[in-house]
Amino acid sequence: MASYYPHPFDPLSPEEIQKAASIVKPCFAGQDPNFRFITLKEPPKQHMIAFLDRQGNGFTAEAARPARQARVQVVASPAPKEAPQLFELIVDLDEQSVVKLENLKGKHSYIDSSYMGEVEKACLADERVRAEIRTLQLPAQAVVCVEAWAYATDGMNDMTERITMCWFYMRLTSNPDANYYAYPLDICAEVDEKLRVVKVYRLPSSSTERIHNEARPFDRSKIHPATDSEYHPSLRSEYRQTTKPYQVVQPEGPSFQADGNSITWEKWSLHVGFNYREGLTLHDVRYDGRSLFYRLSLAEMFVPYGDPRSPYQRKAAFDLGNDGAGINANNLQLGCDCLGTIKYFDGWHNTRAGEPLKMPNVICCHEQDDGILWKHTNFRTKNAVVTRSRILVLQTIITVSNYEYIFAFHFGQDASIRYEVRATGILSTAPIAVGETVPYGTVVAPGVLAPYHQHLFCLRIDPAIDGHANSLLVEESRALPVGDPDVHNPLGVGYVTSKKIVDDEQGLDLDFTTNRTFKIVNEKVVNPITGTPVGFKIVPFYSQMLLSHPASHHARRSEYGQHAIWVTRHDDEEFFPAGRHTMQSAGGDGIASAIERRRRDPVVDTSVRNEDIVVWHTFGSTHNPRIEDWPVMPAEKMVVGLKPFNFFGGNPGLDVAVSTQEQNRSVEVGDGIGRACNRCN
Amino acid sequence: MASYYPHPFDPLSPEEIQKAASIVKPCFAGQDPNFRFITLKEPPKQHMIAFLDRQGNGFTAEAARPARQARVQVVASPAPKEAPQLFELIVDLDEQSVVKLENLKGKHSYIDSSYMGEVEKACLADERVRAEIRTLQLPAQAVVCVEAWAYATDGMNDMTERITMCWFYMRLTSNPDANYYAYPLDICAEVDEKLRVVKVYRLPSSSTERIHNEARPFDRSKIHPATDSEYHPSLRSEYRQTTKPYQVVQPEGPSFQADGNSITWEKWSLHVGFNYREGLTLHDVRYDGRSLFYRLSLAEMFVPYGDPRSPYQRKAAFDLGNDGAGINANNLQLGCDCLGTIKYFDGWHNTRAGEPLKMPNVICCHEQDDGILWKHTNFRTKNAVVTRSRILVLQTIITVSNYEYIFAFHFGQDASIRYEVRATGILSTAPIAVGETVPYGTVVAPGVLAPYHQHLFCLRIDPAIDGHANSLLVEESRALPVGDPDVHNPLGVGYVTSKKIVDDEQGLDLDFTTNRTFKIVNEKVVNPITGTPVGFKIVPFYSQMLLSHPASHHARRSEYGQHAIWVTRHDDEEFFPAGRHTMQSAGGDGIASAIERRRRDPVVDTSVRNEDIVVWHTFGSTHNPRIEDWPVMPAEKMVVGLKPFNFFGGNPGLDVAVSTQEQNRSVEVGDGIGRACNRCN
Repeated sequence: MASYYPHPFDPLSPEEIQKAASIVKPCFAGQDPNFRFITLKEPPKQHMIAFLDRQGNGFTAEAARPARQARVQVVASPAPKEAPQLFELIVDLDEQSVVKLENLKGKHSYIDSSYMGEVEKACLADERVRAEIRTLQLPAQAVVCVEAWAYATDGMNDMTERITMCWFYMRLTSNPDANYYAYPLDICAEVDEKLRVVKVYRLPSSSTERIHNEARPFDRSKIHPATDSEYHPSLRSEYRQTTKPYQVVQPEGPSFQADGNSITWEKWSLHVGFNYREGLTLHDVRYDGRSLFYRLSLAEMFVPYGDPRSPYQRKAAFDLGNDGAGINANNLQLGCDCLGTIKYFDGWHNTRAGEPLKMPNVICCHEQDDGILWKHTNFRTKNAVVTRSRILVLQTIITVSNYEYIFAFHFGQDASIRYEVRATGILSTAPIAVGETVPYGTVVAPGVLAPYHQHLFCLRIDPAIDGHANSLLVEESRALPVGDPDVHNPLGVGYVTSKKIVDDEQGLDLDFTTNRTFKIVNEKVVNPITGTPVGFKIVPFYSQMLLSHPASHHARRSEYGQHAIWVTRHDDEEFFPAGRHTMQSAGGDGIASAIERRRRDPVVDTSVRNEDIVVWHTFGSTHNPRIEDWPVMPAEKMVVGLKPFNFFGGNPGLDVAVSTQEQNRSVEVGDGIGRACNRCN
Repeated sequence: MASYYPHPFDPLSPEEIQKAASIVKPCFAGQDPNFRFITLKEPPKQHMIAFLDRQGNGFTAEAARPARQARVQVVASPAPKEAPQLFELIVDLDEQSVVKLENLKGKHSYIDSSYMGEVEKACLADERVRAEIRTLQLPAQAVVCVEAWAYATDGMNDMTERITMCWFYMRLTSNPDANYYAYPLDICAEVDEKLRVVKVYRLPSSSTERIHNEARPFDRSKIHPATDSEYHPSLRSEYRQTTKPYQVVQPEGPSFQADGNSITWEKWSLHVGFNYREGLTLHDVRYDGRSLFYRLSLAEMFVPYGDPRSPYQRKAAFDLGNDGAGINANNLQLGCDCLGTIKYFDGWHNTRAGEPLKMPNVICCHEQDDGILWKHTNFRTKNAVVTRSRILVLQTIITVSNYEYIFAFHFGQDASIRYEVRATGILSTAPIAVGETVPYGTVVAPGVLAPYHQHLFCLRIDPAIDGHANSLLVEESRALPVGDPDVHNPLGVGYVTSKKIVDDEQGLDLDFTTNRTFKIVNEKVVNPITGTPVGFKIVPFYSQMLLSHPASHHARRSEYGQHAIWVTRHDDEEFFPAGRHTMQSAGGDGIASAIERRRRDPVVDTSVRNEDIVVWHTFGSTHNPRIEDWPVMPAEKMVVGLKPFNFFGGNPGLDVAVSTQEQNRSVEVGDGIGRACNRCN
């Protein structure tokens, strides 16, 4: 192993995880440390820039490597009778030493499915809960399920202890794959850190009812046919038979090459990362050797529910901070999650004891045809030239309790990047009395309320547009004035672009009515033809921002939800726009507070012009469910783009070979064989 | 032929075109009629509704058919010395009679490539033009090209005669496929109806210069390497070799069935239409037998340029009204324009003499894989269920001089429709002095200005949501107030939707900040589960509206560009939101004027609630070119969606079969053979 040097962006190997754990364990001797994560602490950017520059020059000697470090969080009880506490350690793997050890007082770790299982078990074993369930007088075959959710701070409870909300459902079959969200029960319980049930109460059943303790039986009229609410094949019998097979064949294999976590494809090069929290990350993204992005990642996702009735203000999930896109990543399957010729990447996490835990196939890499890249027909000669667009897809899919998210980066031959999010899975449901409606939810089945909610994603864009000194340019398209003697616009048709560089860290809003466009530019590198700074433009996904009141805990905890675009100075420790510790966070840890703190600090320079900046894009959906999202939701697509703007000398896809039937072998309906294109063959 | 009854939505057959011409010809005896078009006059909607109802009941006897009529336009000169005039005729093909004959005084027909060729020829033969070209002292190998453009009315010229603008370019090679847009010349000419050059002048070369007549030679420093500006393979030698073949194989053939122009696919049924102006149209679109849309079509496209200097206000093209999406439709080629198993539809137009003219392969119909349709993993059992999304694509591609547009309707298994526009082709360029810049264009090569411009499309949606009495609902998501004693929102997290039905014909704006959502609903049909009217929501494409001054001719001629959403009462003659005759139109013929006229008419009912309505969506792009759009533009995608909203009883794609590797036969990189998915096989 001595000769193995991981790339500094490589996630920790199983050996490194083991090594980190062994370095950490002595710090918690006799305390049964629960290893929450052992993950790469990415090297400081300044070290990495130097490394990448050297690598570009072909110099990769060991001495040039930044220090290999791990970030580790452990839950342990220093004193046997004390509540468990969360610790963070930075471990130097080369030096085999603990560089830093911090007691994160008042902070809590994320929750995972094994913990959720423990909570369910404890909850169902509790006598008060059992008594409450008995009052429901459920059908004999009913199996009660408890869905554990991270508690969203609401100002009504100042406990620093971790509390878990328990939402109750049932299934009416012994089949464990039944969709229990179809039978929300009106019981709620709260469980503390020691897995003790601290509260049990009944949920409101109408817009006017509140939390209560009235024993009421389950209304039998809520029972509906399985065909209306089941999605699992073991519970369904009828499928449409009309969809004929569709296969993607790549007779010469894929066009990409992977060397460890480094991928090259069609002039692109990039490095794939993966961690427990963000899941898929991309590093050192270049096109034709030119630097574009230092790092691209989904940084957070907030899902607040809009039902104002207690205790529903507690439903407001930070799906990255509270749950983790990495540890919830699916094991992707050939022919199901991915079509064509696929390369999979495994991820590594760790067990409670600090042993490496393999997560197979958490990322897939494959190509897709994406229709026509460019076409022109000369109308004089009638000669057409067509190139088809091939894209490279890096995809990961996560399951967070009821919901699924499909995250994919698409790389284009025209040097564009798309980040596509698809939301699917099952709506998180709540009980409602038959016949009742509320103005903040949709009744999707008798007694089943799908409450309104928002999904607010944040894409973190760490640019390196021809280098690391970048600026954010805000451009608008504005009509020239009419009647101004100093402006030539005699017929009222003229328009120009206004351009403004953002000087200081701040949040900004979208405005399609002015064609407001955000470009990340390198002011020091001017395109010799256009005479303008080289840049990439952000093609945003227009979305409503956070609806919760600015003074609400939701708003204070998810500051990035106030604006669609944020720009900050790069900070090696600033990856998360709602803060590193979102579990029961009280607010003030987010991007707006960080900017405000720095602005008030006379020593700190908050200028973002010609600096190493980070741009954050908040987007998502105000998801007011429709019945068509039930019982499982057709994927809802949201797409963000990054496109070169006066960066190159022309269309980067100009040299893509013209499409031919000889290569593409399509088939015309009617003659059964591939009729040759009369242009190509 | 006696037994052949076309479907009432079928375009005219070649025999019907011939028949219509033969009925029309006697009206223009001795006048050498120039048949501009012979196209289906779609039956009045009331007749069609009755027909479709009868068809649904299995009753298709001849007697039940609406009258088969043609709409014909002819240019003819009633008196030998008079200017040619435009006539419109309605012809009853069953009765073999002319139902209506109208002299369209002051209106002009669209222009086509044969006319553009005539203009070029006349222009280049003109002595003044030749003299002006000589002053350019062009390189010996230069071949001058003239691009004829419809004249955009600007209020500076009140002639009712048709004028054509001639823009000059050159190529520096004998290869006729050379990209002459790379060499815009600073000459401009205007040609009249009789193909006489009426004006020749020189174009401005800087932001301060104006039209002039100074003889100046062509600046040799504008000459640049062919590799920077050529896209045609005959003029390029180097292609990337890295893109390996990618084939779509459908071993059992496509999943769709076509019977004439009727297509059925995955519970969808629809009828394909085609005409010289709109190109592809869709009719009687149903899902699972339920009526959704009576007609879907692209109704207009306006492309105004933002350069305020004369004569550039004349560049403002109505690509449907002035040019025609039908007559400019490409002959689509297997393996190039379309991948997989393809069915093509031919179109029929007519010659000048009224003979049928075949336009092969103007529409293609095929399936695509569209990633994951829905997925859920039960986190307790770890069992995942995935269905892949198959879409049906109906695509047409048009070339309008320099630009290409790819128009495609995508039908989903979840009963959603997407309308995707891709803009590609070549930027329309103008000359600029080397070293100069202007604030309303991008210099993409030495001496080559790509002026800013807008593309404003209008999608006409004629809904039939469970019937023909529909309403437009405007919904917004709004935070509940805090501190209002009448509203329960103690923690400031609640939000609800506000709903408002639009009562009268009008234009409306988008607003993503309130999640403003437009739904077409049938208020009389209430979803039994949700308790709300059945509907489809419009997923708009957020775009800046027209930038030209409201008083400008551009604005008055393209009224639909003022608002993103319009709702009107259905009118059998109202298909075009900028009016039927856009060639040199003076304004006042558009959708806003039509609404205003009806509103002022005390006899006309302009209510649009529970009525037969039409909804129009204006969208597009403010296209400020980037150098990456040169010399041929990577396709720019714009997508509009139509999605069921509380229309069905649940996810319409719930019965799509689960994906299996057995059917999809994907391949994993590394083992070379398809490793079976451990879930499916």
